[in-house]
Amino acid sequence: MDTERLDRTRSAMREAELDALVCRLPANVLLLSGHWPLIGWSFLFFPIEGKPTIAVPHCDEREAREELWEADCVPFLFGVLAGGDPYEAVANTLRDAATAKPCKRIGYEGGFECVAPPWNAAEPAIPAAATRDLLGSVFGADALVDATGLLNGLRARKTPAEQEKLRVVNEIAAIGLGAFMEHVEVGVTGLDLVTRVEGRIMLKGTGHRGARRVRAFAQVSTGPEETVVGYRPMEISTHRKLEKDDIALLELAVVADGFWSDRTRPAVAGGASARKREVFDLVVRAQEAAIAAVKPGATAGEVDEAARSVIRAGGYDKEFLHVTGHGLGLRYHEPVPTILPGGSEVLAEGMLHTVEPGLYMEGFGGIRVEDNVLVTAAGSEVLGPFPKEI
Amino acid sequence: MDTERLDRTRSAMREAELDALVCRLPANVLLLSGHWPLIGWSFLFFPIEGKPTIAVPHCDEREAREELWEADCVPFLFGVLAGGDPYEAVANTLRDAATAKPCKRIGYEGGFECVAPPWNAAEPAIPAAATRDLLGSVFGADALVDATGLLNGLRARKTPAEQEKLRVVNEIAAIGLGAFMEHVEVGVTGLDLVTRVEGRIMLKGTGHRGARRVRAFAQVSTGPEETVVGYRPMEISTHRKLEKDDIALLELAVVADGFWSDRTRPAVAGGASARKREVFDLVVRAQEAAIAAVKPGATAGEVDEAARSVIRAGGYDKEFLHVTGHGLGLRYHEPVPTILPGGSEVLAEGMLHTVEPGLYMEGFGGIRVEDNVLVTAAGSEVLGPFPKEI
Repeated sequence: MDTERLDRTRSAMREAELDALVCRLPANVLLLSGHWPLIGWSFLFFPIEGKPTIAVPHCDEREAREELWEADCVPFLFGVLAGGDPYEAVANTLRDAATAKPCKRIGYEGGFECVAPPWNAAEPAIPAAATRDLLGSVFGADALVDATGLLNGLRARKTPAEQEKLRVVNEIAAIGLGAFMEHVEVGVTGLDLVTRVEGRIMLKGTGHRGARRVRAFAQVSTGPEETVVGYRPMEISTHRKLEKDDIALLELAVVADGFWSDRTRPAVAGGASARKREVFDLVVRAQEAAIAAVKPGATAGEVDEAARSVIRAGGYDKEFLHVTGHGLGLRYHEPVPTILPGGSEVLAEGMLHTVEPGLYMEGFGGIRVEDNVLVTAAGSEVLGPFPKEI
Repeated sequence: MDTERLDRTRSAMREAELDALVCRLPANVLLLSGHWPLIGWSFLFFPIEGKPTIAVPHCDEREAREELWEADCVPFLFGVLAGGDPYEAVANTLRDAATAKPCKRIGYEGGFECVAPPWNAAEPAIPAAATRDLLGSVFGADALVDATGLLNGLRARKTPAEQEKLRVVNEIAAIGLGAFMEHVEVGVTGLDLVTRVEGRIMLKGTGHRGARRVRAFAQVSTGPEETVVGYRPMEISTHRKLEKDDIALLELAVVADGFWSDRTRPAVAGGASARKREVFDLVVRAQEAAIAAVKPGATAGEVDEAARSVIRAGGYDKEFLHVTGHGLGLRYHEPVPTILPGGSEVLAEGMLHTVEPGLYMEGFGGIRVEDNVLVTAAGSEVLGPFPKEI
């Protein structure tokens, strides 16, 4: 049980005068209960005092009981003929829980517009009108308070237990980076590399330090035209064959039991030209300067400037066209902190963010190096470290 | 351009007295514009008359311009330093569009609680409070009407152009079923099979009849304990090795350019016992009886009973514990039609649904066979047909 997470949450709830939180988004259910929903139909009632209650579709029940820290687990039939309306079943469970612990102000997930999928990434379940109506009918519409800011704030600083899970997923990601570096060569396609990376992660990542549900989302762009837009959040991998001195750029999201990593490595087929090496070295130096600047009390702007000044000194400016980093952990991208020019957010122990400088030039392509950096008391820790070689 | 889709949509809008629809969910943007968003940040304004307008993040712009039927494509910077608040950019575009075509009643996506992810399945973008506020600020909160029912109704009957896309994705799924059947043998694990299936689909499916963005979500359960819960919407594949006479059950979702298939095949390692063959044959006969019952005018209940009566005659009843089928196409599962006992929905030409009888017995395991069946004028068509052998 992650008592630090529970304590921090209750303290934030007290400050916001919330009597309870109700969550169905898998990331938030995981955050507050230890259980990562398979299909996104678990509803968690988390009161400011006492044991939480979770309504769980029976198809998720086995994993829920294995993973839940401490909660009354109330299963309901789902997706079978004998089951009724799931909302009615959930409403009954929430009503019982709220009767035992009367609530005046209930925080709910009204404002999440980007979400992490459940294990069933092919079909996320999300809170929309029916969830709002359900909560309104149980607690009264006037009792509902959007707790999106509170939840994102809590998610920004990882507890030691969460940090360990994030180490695990980054170690798994590093297994995928290894598969990528091994297979980049002339004649290989972006799609070949995607299947190598995803397959290796599935086979070697599942079971790594107890990880049970592992999935990778890899994208590999190749050559100047594809990699020059390699800053896009999701590239399209193709059958284009790598030629000599072509860049292959791997953008890799990995989830392990609900915890996410976001990594990037470039590689050049058949030996890199001097210019490729030069740009790569510059990007690596910028990344390392930013990582060296990460510590509690540093501002996001200072970390960004540490990277950006190296890039500028190397003769580039407009080609580094995105932020130096973003938060992550319970999702592929999280809003806190954002490492950008002039950013006034102050880094605090337990924050996790990417450091990912990149340069994109027409005719040349894109080179980015991305790792996930934890803010520690002593400064920083790169999770799941992996060599930087072009 | 799918003029039939546009005509049907405008006719449904007239009936619902809607002056425009505004969509950001990738499935609905695709339905009404021909463009499948990469990251889920495209907002489509679809007026009852005249050209639609779409605000597109610049990182999706190239694909949007290639795919859009006919729309004013207004790009905005996204995810780069030079970009501002994306909601503000989208609001400006919608405001301009609405000024040109004044609207009193606007349909929006208020009620979608299960969604198809965008191409970036690792991080779906969804309409929540900020989207509602955005639409309210542009059109006035009183103008907004939840169009979820209207959109799901439109999605229930596929146009000939959509049917062709659904044939393509089912052909790609069949490529994955082939990889599965080839590799099931004693000693192989569920995770091995997942990587074989997903890898084959990625490599051979991408490019199949022009498909550009292809992804598979495979789950393979093995042996009696795992497959007996193989009715779950998303299973957990493991390192457990197949033993002689073990069932391997593949549940496979595939998306190709925004169109989905949902297929299942079982296979037995090292030769199936008489009992496994018997159950498999019964399930296949039930599936074929249901498929034979599919035609315009048939009720969902009739199709369900065609499958269920075969199962009952074979001596099973409670072991077939789920519906016979569900709609699909713009999503892994869609609500119309649902093929269940007593179902009164009437099948109509262009509907697409699964037919997936299955039996699950403790100590034995689970066997299900699932295909996607299109309702045609002549009766039915199984998309991307694939042999049924155990």
